[in-house]
Amino acid sequence: MAPTKTAALDTIKAIVGPRGWVAPGDDAAPFVREERGLYTSTPELIVLPATTEEVARVVAICAEEAIAITPQSGNTGLVGGAVAEDGIVLSTRRMDAILDLNAQNATISVQAGCILADIQAAAQRAGLLFPLSLAAEGSCRIGGNLSTNAGGVQVLRYGNARDLVLGLEAVLADGRIWNGMTALRKDNTGYDLKQLFIGAEGTLGIITGAVLKLFPAPKDRVCAMIAMDSPRQALELYVRARERLGDSVTAFEMIPRLAMTFVCRHIPGARDPFIAPYPTYILIELSAAHVGESLQDALQDLLAPALEKGLVGDAVVAVSEAQTQNLWRLRESISEAQKHEGGSIKHDISVAVSHIPEFLDRAGALVKKAIPDARICAFGHIGDGNIHFNISQPEGADKDEFLSRWGEINRLVHDLVVDMGGSFSAEHGIGKLKVGEMERYVSDVALDMMRTLKRTLDPKNIMNPGKIVRP
Amino acid sequence: MAPTKTAALDTIKAIVGPRGWVAPGDDAAPFVREERGLYTSTPELIVLPATTEEVARVVAICAEEAIAITPQSGNTGLVGGAVAEDGIVLSTRRMDAILDLNAQNATISVQAGCILADIQAAAQRAGLLFPLSLAAEGSCRIGGNLSTNAGGVQVLRYGNARDLVLGLEAVLADGRIWNGMTALRKDNTGYDLKQLFIGAEGTLGIITGAVLKLFPAPKDRVCAMIAMDSPRQALELYVRARERLGDSVTAFEMIPRLAMTFVCRHIPGARDPFIAPYPTYILIELSAAHVGESLQDALQDLLAPALEKGLVGDAVVAVSEAQTQNLWRLRESISEAQKHEGGSIKHDISVAVSHIPEFLDRAGALVKKAIPDARICAFGHIGDGNIHFNISQPEGADKDEFLSRWGEINRLVHDLVVDMGGSFSAEHGIGKLKVGEMERYVSDVALDMMRTLKRTLDPKNIMNPGKIVRP
Repeated sequence: MAPTKTAALDTIKAIVGPRGWVAPGDDAAPFVREERGLYTSTPELIVLPATTEEVARVVAICAEEAIAITPQSGNTGLVGGAVAEDGIVLSTRRMDAILDLNAQNATISVQAGCILADIQAAAQRAGLLFPLSLAAEGSCRIGGNLSTNAGGVQVLRYGNARDLVLGLEAVLADGRIWNGMTALRKDNTGYDLKQLFIGAEGTLGIITGAVLKLFPAPKDRVCAMIAMDSPRQALELYVRARERLGDSVTAFEMIPRLAMTFVCRHIPGARDPFIAPYPTYILIELSAAHVGESLQDALQDLLAPALEKGLVGDAVVAVSEAQTQNLWRLRESISEAQKHEGGSIKHDISVAVSHIPEFLDRAGALVKKAIPDARICAFGHIGDGNIHFNISQPEGADKDEFLSRWGEINRLVHDLVVDMGGSFSAEHGIGKLKVGEMERYVSDVALDMMRTLKRTLDPKNIMNPGKIVRP
Repeated sequence: MAPTKTAALDTIKAIVGPRGWVAPGDDAAPFVREERGLYTSTPELIVLPATTEEVARVVAICAEEAIAITPQSGNTGLVGGAVAEDGIVLSTRRMDAILDLNAQNATISVQAGCILADIQAAAQRAGLLFPLSLAAEGSCRIGGNLSTNAGGVQVLRYGNARDLVLGLEAVLADGRIWNGMTALRKDNTGYDLKQLFIGAEGTLGIITGAVLKLFPAPKDRVCAMIAMDSPRQALELYVRARERLGDSVTAFEMIPRLAMTFVCRHIPGARDPFIAPYPTYILIELSAAHVGESLQDALQDLLAPALEKGLVGDAVVAVSEAQTQNLWRLRESISEAQKHEGGSIKHDISVAVSHIPEFLDRAGALVKKAIPDARICAFGHIGDGNIHFNISQPEGADKDEFLSRWGEINRLVHDLVVDMGGSFSAEHGIGKLKVGEMERYVSDVALDMMRTLKRTLDPKNIMNPGKIVRP
């Protein structure tokens, strides 16, 4: 390491104090672990500032010495966005305070390192709802959720992470602090600067705090699993559900037969709620805005004619919180269960909701042509057009040989998605994993605008270099 | 005019053809009219392209010759954002096609010149809702609504214009077309470029098309006018309404006694629905997500205890569409009625919802100290924290003398708003009117970031120069 770099890292250690840094080695495991095992992370130092001011001072030194900064939050991302080649990992996990909750204004102000579940819990204690909800919520942190514009299971009703932000604080690539921590529902004072940092995966600055919207807590919820013949019927049911029940529909998740089989096979206690097997299942959740609203009646209004017409084959409605949790566990255990079936080639795609059945038909045919015995496990958020199109290896196949075809299969699927006007990264972001896809699929004009923003806001290319776009 | 400029304008005329331009003069009135009569607009040519490609070719020529472009949509803005000092006004009003409506995906694709009411009507014909709603909806156009991130009366439930956009097309300051017309509810492929243009008032590029979100149409609506003693009680009622009725509350608008008086005095057919006068009125609207939901019962659940506790004094619930329209007309006629009472000094401010009563107390005291007989008519969107704090001249006072104190009164009110963490431009934008306020109140870091964006994306300063930020 160059002597000036060593000196800079020593200065950084002095700024954050002995509890504020971790050297590479055993203690660094939580910071260099990479969720999917695709990358090795090799930072020279892991820095854990305790305040925004410390973040700013650290960044200023890195800017001076051109030291790369890889911002890190809960380190639960799936695209290698928090992986460092060199320089420092800057973790916000010590900045985990809830700064303020204003129930009348229905807002919560938090530091970037707050764990998502802690924010949900604080809202709940105040009789309110913070609707961002995803599998990693017990360990992911809000700074990362905002930096990746996280999605999850309630986007249908409440939007993505971006839609839940009123105010933001960020440290810029030159170490200045931008304080945009306003709690206003309307504010048209010039360019909306917070949008630059949301979804930018830490490549334009580091999010250090946020003011988030809270919502009235639903007065009641009802959850049901509905069995049917195909995704086409699932789409038809979705359209009817929105028509009849409007924004009462807070989740509408698709589970294919194969996923149900995987979950029941590998997840202790999980069981198929139906006696007969069906090709496609929908997990639907309705929420009541006010007391006295009968969700059971509303659900029957949807299901009775659908059953009569043969649009759906069977349905079970949860009649207790335990049953609701069991149904949700079937959905939320799919990724875990799939790990037990060997290698899987994953896609996080979206298309217009109306195109989902066509996409599944065409993508399935392409994959089956390439790998005839591949097992397609396509599940996810129908209402958002967001399908996790994951392909498990053929039974008994060699895992490494199967995974060696990752790029080839991605190409088939992503070519089709883009051809259908869809996205090759619906909710997980770009990170390191999809930088090549960006260069292949995003238009020259858009890429040029992104590179221009990157060059302008991070001229030394120190903020999470190598992620999203190469300069 | 310089010969090269004359030649450039001739080339522009040739590009758009004889129906595509208007010379300054009588026919130019709709394009140079300025809503509040604060500014004179003096473009050298008004250009009305018919296609995005024509817009792009016109902008390319202007970029070459450094000719200023003032983009214009419905020309209904209130801050002089569409006023030209020289160069061309580029109106998108000939680009008013609805390109596509996808009911299953609940999206509508439109050209920038579509009139807002036409989009609402198209959605309604498909059994869906486009919720952006504001007084100018019969003549404002969506490109302007998006460029100013318009607000309106349903922000409480559906968000600002920004929140309603999925995809966007824009012509950049160098004449390139950026096509981001995707219809995806989740798309995390790099920086969210559309956010740069939404709310930028045409200073970074020209919005030429958009893909907008549609919502399930409410199955029922109920509207009531509620009379009470003060804004403090209105806030308390608002918090209870959100607690008990959640997102069923789709509008919550405050009308002060003075506004009721003005409206009943000046608007033909308008009448106070109550026998006794009250200091403060709330117009509340509830919407039903599904059939069979009893909004009347829900409203009674809110009102009965509030009446019993003395929180509210009286209430009338509309029992017909005609009554609903009459109640809404009282709210929507305030600005018109106020014109009949002489000059008025206006503020479009927002604070945290919880701060509204304190703001009204303190701002009222400041104004009364400066102009003891000023008549304060503060109305608007309580649920958004957005108050139109408008001050009518004292009865019998000289209008010009009163209006000469505009700057002084703005200063008092805006100093207070900013001190309370609020915004001096909640929904109308900056335009020419508030460029000075931007420089006074926005932090150096934020202003510097905005100027950097402007310089980077519009290096020749041809896109709506003099609006939002000076370079």
